[in-house]
Amino acid sequence: MRIANLSDRAVLVAADHRAVDVHTASNGRFGPALADVYATWTEFLDWARTVDPSTGESFDPADLGAPAPSPRQLFAIGLNYSEHAAESGFAVPDTLPPIFTKFASCLSGPRTTVTLPRGGHTDWEVELVVVIGAEASKVSAEDAWGVVAGLTVGQDISERITQKAGPAPQFSMGKSFPGFGPMGPWLVTVDEFANPDDLELGCSINGEEMQKGRTADLIFPVPALIEKLSAQLTLHPGDVIFTGTPAGVGIGRSPERYLAPGDELVTYVEGIGELRQTFVAEG
Amino acid sequence: MRIANLSDRAVLVAADHRAVDVHTASNGRFGPALADVYATWTEFLDWARTVDPSTGESFDPADLGAPAPSPRQLFAIGLNYSEHAAESGFAVPDTLPPIFTKFASCLSGPRTTVTLPRGGHTDWEVELVVVIGAEASKVSAEDAWGVVAGLTVGQDISERITQKAGPAPQFSMGKSFPGFGPMGPWLVTVDEFANPDDLELGCSINGEEMQKGRTADLIFPVPALIEKLSAQLTLHPGDVIFTGTPAGVGIGRSPERYLAPGDELVTYVEGIGELRQTFVAEG
Repeated sequence: MRIANLSDRAVLVAADHRAVDVHTASNGRFGPALADVYATWTEFLDWARTVDPSTGESFDPADLGAPAPSPRQLFAIGLNYSEHAAESGFAVPDTLPPIFTKFASCLSGPRTTVTLPRGGHTDWEVELVVVIGAEASKVSAEDAWGVVAGLTVGQDISERITQKAGPAPQFSMGKSFPGFGPMGPWLVTVDEFANPDDLELGCSINGEEMQKGRTADLIFPVPALIEKLSAQLTLHPGDVIFTGTPAGVGIGRSPERYLAPGDELVTYVEGIGELRQTFVAEG
Repeated sequence: MRIANLSDRAVLVAADHRAVDVHTASNGRFGPALADVYATWTEFLDWARTVDPSTGESFDPADLGAPAPSPRQLFAIGLNYSEHAAESGFAVPDTLPPIFTKFASCLSGPRTTVTLPRGGHTDWEVELVVVIGAEASKVSAEDAWGVVAGLTVGQDISERITQKAGPAPQFSMGKSFPGFGPMGPWLVTVDEFANPDDLELGCSINGEEMQKGRTADLIFPVPALIEKLSAQLTLHPGDVIFTGTPAGVGIGRSPERYLAPGDELVTYVEGIGELRQTFVAEG
């Protein structure tokens, strides 16, 4: 099942870009926004399985927003693929990967134009993104997929100059410029994947492949992340986890390469869909 | 003016613990929760100035919650007093202080019992906390106080073992255990302070003074923080800034000292009020 945020309303999506409005079709029982749907996720799923989204109306993908535009908590995981940790010049984490945030004002839908901060080095990071569908504390890795509402595609766009400003790594600020957190195009429920622990993900610039990896290579896979996070704090419905990026980012290349005005960045995760960002110079 | 979160409803507070419910007294125009009030802050203030909170009903301070229990963005500032940067073993920041988050599930009201994580080194950090009252982008330091809804007291309780786990400082996770973000007891509007840029703040354990400083010693004062943050991203009504802690934390002492079961931590900022936390061992 695919669920999207269409003009700030939760919709069920069919493959041919048709959508059923959740609030209307459920006679007001669920929604209207996706955030409301996460709060009653299990009941929502039971109802949604009775609906055929291909009976819905066609929509313009340009109207899709982030599947979780205003999460109460957004966890962004750093250095979660060995080759990426190495290309970034950090040690590979053993007990806990770096956990920071992307501030919510940077989140956007899947198709956007993003302004490159003047004087910056703006980099790409394809990531599998998890949205939580239940209140969760002290969940074991074994039970972790059961608290996941679904998966989506994320770009953890990163400004490397800001990221290095100050006496300690400035991950959260460097990754939170406006438009630096595109997500989407929709949420896909876990039951749609033959193996949710092994998905191909990647991105390209102007058609040239930059990153290509598999989530099977995550140092801390999704169940381990949920176990680690929920061991310490309570996860809430609608919370988001950006799970980390594989090798191939611009700062890890020789010579380094960064996004330039006019570049088109296409980002995908197998079985979900793609994001499409065009970059422009700061005016 | 003092505004508090009393049993999840916005109230106007008088000095003798009397409160007027905002939603009821405004005939539903504002509230019912404090988050709703921030969204219409200017109009709310105009109305609130016509109300005498001492005509309200008495309340139990134990029912107070965090003045911003679920901010869309919470910015926590590190190393923002020179002596504290030195005692922490970091360089003093020059262009940008470390900016991380406290995940919202750690926030609480002003009077609580907090569980000490087993095997941890749990430390105290008194902080002046700012709540934003307007959407704000590219605000100059000169105009910055104009986008502030008010000030409150915060404790940035910090677990130092977790904070050091991994290849980069783990500020956000170390500071986000349940109960590690007490705030309150209420929000005080900026006009109540003769000089909002110079407030005494401190904390004590079982009556013994641990920290005592003045916000005049902030390396990046409140207006500079708002200028720096809003230069990069958009601040929203209800967003929160924990502005940093002065010297005197446990990790900076010789020998180091940490919170123990039975300790009572009292935290204050001049002209606002105090927080009171009691610590217990993990069961």
